[in-house]
Amino acid sequence: MAEKIVVALGGNALQSGKMEPTAEAQLAVVKETCERIADLAEKGYEVGVVHGNGPQVGRILLASEAAKAVTPAMPFDVCGAMSQGYIGYHLQQALKVALQKRGIKTPVATLLTQMVVDSKDPGFQNPTKPIGPFYSEEEAKALVEEKGYSVKEDAGRGWRRVVASPIPTEIVELDSVKRLWDSTIVITCGGGGIPVVRTEDGTLEGVAAVIDKDFAAELLAENVEADALMILTEVEQVAINFNKPNQENLGKLTYAEAEKHCADGQFAPGSMLPKVQAAMKFVKANPTKKAIITSLDKAIDALEGKTGTVITFA
Amino acid sequence: MAEKIVVALGGNALQSGKMEPTAEAQLAVVKETCERIADLAEKGYEVGVVHGNGPQVGRILLASEAAKAVTPAMPFDVCGAMSQGYIGYHLQQALKVALQKRGIKTPVATLLTQMVVDSKDPGFQNPTKPIGPFYSEEEAKALVEEKGYSVKEDAGRGWRRVVASPIPTEIVELDSVKRLWDSTIVITCGGGGIPVVRTEDGTLEGVAAVIDKDFAAELLAENVEADALMILTEVEQVAINFNKPNQENLGKLTYAEAEKHCADGQFAPGSMLPKVQAAMKFVKANPTKKAIITSLDKAIDALEGKTGTVITFA
Repeated sequence: MAEKIVVALGGNALQSGKMEPTAEAQLAVVKETCERIADLAEKGYEVGVVHGNGPQVGRILLASEAAKAVTPAMPFDVCGAMSQGYIGYHLQQALKVALQKRGIKTPVATLLTQMVVDSKDPGFQNPTKPIGPFYSEEEAKALVEEKGYSVKEDAGRGWRRVVASPIPTEIVELDSVKRLWDSTIVITCGGGGIPVVRTEDGTLEGVAAVIDKDFAAELLAENVEADALMILTEVEQVAINFNKPNQENLGKLTYAEAEKHCADGQFAPGSMLPKVQAAMKFVKANPTKKAIITSLDKAIDALEGKTGTVITFA
Repeated sequence: MAEKIVVALGGNALQSGKMEPTAEAQLAVVKETCERIADLAEKGYEVGVVHGNGPQVGRILLASEAAKAVTPAMPFDVCGAMSQGYIGYHLQQALKVALQKRGIKTPVATLLTQMVVDSKDPGFQNPTKPIGPFYSEEEAKALVEEKGYSVKEDAGRGWRRVVASPIPTEIVELDSVKRLWDSTIVITCGGGGIPVVRTEDGTLEGVAAVIDKDFAAELLAENVEADALMILTEVEQVAINFNKPNQENLGKLTYAEAEKHCADGQFAPGSMLPKVQAAMKFVKANPTKKAIITSLDKAIDALEGKTGTVITFA
């Protein structure tokens, strides 16, 4: 049986920080990324792909707001759906070509994915994720009045809308993901999924929220019974005392060790912390399985136990 | 065996011409549309859904161009991918809810879809579809120089970019559509599909083009061996002498009759003509099957032979 792996791609797998944030520049980076994913497929791993969308959805929202004299601005859930279209298209095109070059005929498909979040998630009481343009205090207060937005002052640079970052609870299109998984490389839960809540009468309703793609990938990995959750980021290994003279890279990490490091504030919120937390959640739910945090280039080496940080329950 | 139907949704199934073109207004119309699609599923038909994207992709492009001082403008193929995200999300959400209300558990999924077009398609020699904002003559000529755009003067209102409207030849994600079809209501080939060409080395490359969603739906119907291609539009039946005192609504139409009416200029280009042409193409390729052109509200009646225009080969 092929090992099933959910791969979560971070921002650096989609766009280079050194280049203009154009679609052309994204496609160039995505082509490189897909060579590495195709390598995994060539090695015989059964792969599914989740990707982030932070910078992309941010720019879609900025463009939408900047153009609102010309055409109505889009709600944030729709911006998320559009970012799934944007990124999924590039990934599925580049991955198909990368597989073809290797003589691999596995289909590739992007499924638009809605993600249920709990309307009672504590995140909604205290939204913290800034999105969209900067406003003056006056503009910001008008948006609170008119649209019910939450706003916060952002480090002296002006006011911004803030939204919740709730925990994902259910992949609406899971059935379809599962039906495709065995035959197809599925790109799903892009940007963490389009956030929706279930109302009392069972309706699904889009909400303005940011779902962490690592938690989305974790939920997917649980749901498809993956053997490994692989979170790819800029560094080859998780480290404690990061960027200090006594930095220590970690090859292995148990749940208990990870818990302690989290409590000690070793991992940066919004950066390494959610990755470690998602890994912990996966191995807690699946104590015989593993999570891996490493860089894209080292994915195969890490799966073969040569590098990366392998998180296990015990 | 359930009858397999590919449903092509026109612009009126997605947005009301009477309302502001907001996402909220689209969702309201899409909810109504999905009630009708759910009716088809409830009747036991096996349905796949294709939708247009003309106004939506137009607005995405306008917003992108209007905001380019803030964030780089998107290429047109990416705008198409974003419109699949936007529209597919609303359709899959509303359809899931409409099915749930009927106690139907069929999964619903939107597959991002690339559509191969032939780079030698005559459409590329003479692009005719205007997209994006209006330019002055000077701006237009600069775009020809700098970006290689084709431009045309648009009825005294200014200059616009024009792109080709090639015939679709291959659905890149067809494998995945087929794998899902039997179990799932698949929303695919949105906006006719994201246009791509195959380069000599087999690479897929996005191109700026507009693919007619009726031809895309036709190709899908052939590929999944559908029993019927159903093109839903604003009118209940195809008519000759449309809007004249001697208007005649047509209940049935053979290939030969349709061919004659097309030659006589009975159907408006960009409106009823491509619908009739797509219907003709389907029944020519599948002489035992049928195509139906009718309105969304009459879909079931038309399938039951009570109304609509049924196009058959002989």
